[in-house]
Amino acid sequence: MPVKATVLIRPKEGILDPQGQAVEEALPALGFEGVSHVHVGRLVELEVEDASQLEAMCEKLLANPLIEDYEIVTGS
Amino acid sequence: MPVKATVLIRPKEGILDPQGQAVEEALPALGFEGVSHVHVGRLVELEVEDASQLEAMCEKLLANPLIEDYEIVTGS
Repeated sequence: MPVKATVLIRPKEGILDPQGQAVEEALPALGFEGVSHVHVGRLVELEVEDASQLEAMCEKLLANPLIEDYEIVTGS
Repeated sequence: MPVKATVLIRPKEGILDPQGQAVEEALPALGFEGVSHVHVGRLVELEVEDASQLEAMCEKLLANPLIEDYEIVTGS
């Protein structure tokens, strides 16, 4: 029975996040004030037969562990 | 006091998801079997003064409502 999993991938602390910066600068220009600490990452949703493989999938394909952190949420 | 919010952005049902397809095809090539229904979306994390603005931010900048669904999670 396949398991539903969600992987949240974020730029590591201290790593440049140009997408987040672009959003943070664009929001006030559209009239949205009081927005800070914007970070843009990726969301991967998938179904796996063997949830124990998820960490290896993240390390090898889904995330770039040098510059990104990932969080695996299963059973969602 | 700013509110932390997470926005999950996914391709709408029926809309082509080439990133998801690429991941789904790449995983077996790396030795990961039994993976299906892969979808790749975006994750936006931010702090806002006024959480009621989040939906408008999604409609106007964070997501493309024609082809993407978004889910706003606050207080995370």
